[in-house]
Amino acid sequence: MSDAAHAFVPGHVTGFFTVARGEDPIETGSRGGGIALSDGVAVTVRPGDDTRVTLNGEAIEVEAVERVLNALRTTATVTAETPLPLGSGFGVSGGLALGTALAANAAFDRRLSYNELVTVAHGAEVQSGSGLGDVVGQARGGVPLRLEPGGPQYNYLDAIPARSRVEYVTLGELSTEDVVGGDTDALTEAGERALSSVVEEPTLATFTRASRRFSREADLLTPAVKEVIDDVAAAGGDAAMAMLGETVFALGTGLTDAGYDASVCSVYPAGATVEDGPPTA
Amino acid sequence: MSDAAHAFVPGHVTGFFTVARGEDPIETGSRGGGIALSDGVAVTVRPGDDTRVTLNGEAIEVEAVERVLNALRTTATVTAETPLPLGSGFGVSGGLALGTALAANAAFDRRLSYNELVTVAHGAEVQSGSGLGDVVGQARGGVPLRLEPGGPQYNYLDAIPARSRVEYVTLGELSTEDVVGGDTDALTEAGERALSSVVEEPTLATFTRASRRFSREADLLTPAVKEVIDDVAAAGGDAAMAMLGETVFALGTGLTDAGYDASVCSVYPAGATVEDGPPTA
Repeated sequence: MSDAAHAFVPGHVTGFFTVARGEDPIETGSRGGGIALSDGVAVTVRPGDDTRVTLNGEAIEVEAVERVLNALRTTATVTAETPLPLGSGFGVSGGLALGTALAANAAFDRRLSYNELVTVAHGAEVQSGSGLGDVVGQARGGVPLRLEPGGPQYNYLDAIPARSRVEYVTLGELSTEDVVGGDTDALTEAGERALSSVVEEPTLATFTRASRRFSREADLLTPAVKEVIDDVAAAGGDAAMAMLGETVFALGTGLTDAGYDASVCSVYPAGATVEDGPPTA
Repeated sequence: MSDAAHAFVPGHVTGFFTVARGEDPIETGSRGGGIALSDGVAVTVRPGDDTRVTLNGEAIEVEAVERVLNALRTTATVTAETPLPLGSGFGVSGGLALGTALAANAAFDRRLSYNELVTVAHGAEVQSGSGLGDVVGQARGGVPLRLEPGGPQYNYLDAIPARSRVEYVTLGELSTEDVVGGDTDALTEAGERALSSVVEEPTLATFTRASRRFSREADLLTPAVKEVIDDVAAAGGDAAMAMLGETVFALGTGLTDAGYDASVCSVYPAGATVEDGPPTA
């Protein structure tokens, strides 16, 4: 058993998605499209007799993290830092699960492959009800398109070959479990239409347009989010809603041009990785 | 048509590989394992009436680049910079092909997806005889394991979840075409044994051990390369031969500890990407 190990997982905003339930958690997931963000989750795992998780210095309980550590047959102290808000559509829970898998594999010398660790984290998220597609998007990086649902053994990923500055503002939280746990047929139909249009023309402009349409068609657009998106459009920019949170993301300087005090990051081209030294969020 | 566009492609040393010929170029390729390097190829594509390619300021002819531009139905001025030597097992030709595909897609607004561009570059490399597995490894980044051969529609990639400093020295060139064009049955058997051992234990230590064994079993180890690898081992380090070049790579400080004046870089976690601005190699 070695000392502490570190991992960095990019944040991930989903623009549109489907719900696809399979026979087991690693066949379950979602099709859809998202953007991996340079603002992410930095995770440190240290051997410990009990599992304790802190995020930005505060103790939290994250079912997906406990499931990951159980799957790796260990307990640990997990210390995570992120500039991203929880429950607002940035894949923080997926980042905690995947970062814990990567760092625990290193700290406890478990000798699992990258895809095996992604499978463990994806399955833990699905079983916890906290996410369907963030983990595999965060494992790829860039602007991932999830053409098939599920973990690495089942899914098929492509991507939009583009980089950009990304801005975001968060107005409030939405529960992934509440939306994904109900009737998702209409949502899935809207998600399939959005994915088709982006596959046909894989550009960032088409991605945000498809995301805006999805949020309306899936009946997830809140009045507050709509107002911000309209303000960005009035200022000549391009914005959409992040799934699932009361969050608006914009390409380039869309939000600041419209007068919002937005957080600024960029498309993160790499997937989640273990780090040599202490990570920075 | 827009202005110049830029892409960065990590270098890629292959430790072991098989030769797998399929019905067409995108089903042809190799299984194997490699390391994506932070030393890579920075490519700029500018619209031009003829196709001209320069590498580090010198005009060169690269069949795979011309095939990529033909596939994208265009001609262009391609300007590339790299600290890596050509013909020495670093995937420079794959980097030129993939970087040209990504940058030309942006410069000429071709609206192809990431996988489509990787498919174009992989097919161009295979048809040119200059490589079988570099392009798909360079598109993934990290420490890719190619479990199935071919382009993105056919292959299946995993990876070793690890980062490391990487050192290298080059003693001379080897022709990929000469080795891969001949009888490759023994080489492929050795490559399959190496891949099996790394899949069983996906760590960097197992990777370099399997790579050393492969270079002996495939009868590719030259006396000069063997001497350097032995020197690194005598100094307590871990080195192997890069396929296909008279090149030695070592993890950590293996080569400098053994007294060699090695180039230093690191595992590059991201796959090839378009860049926002002018690239740096």
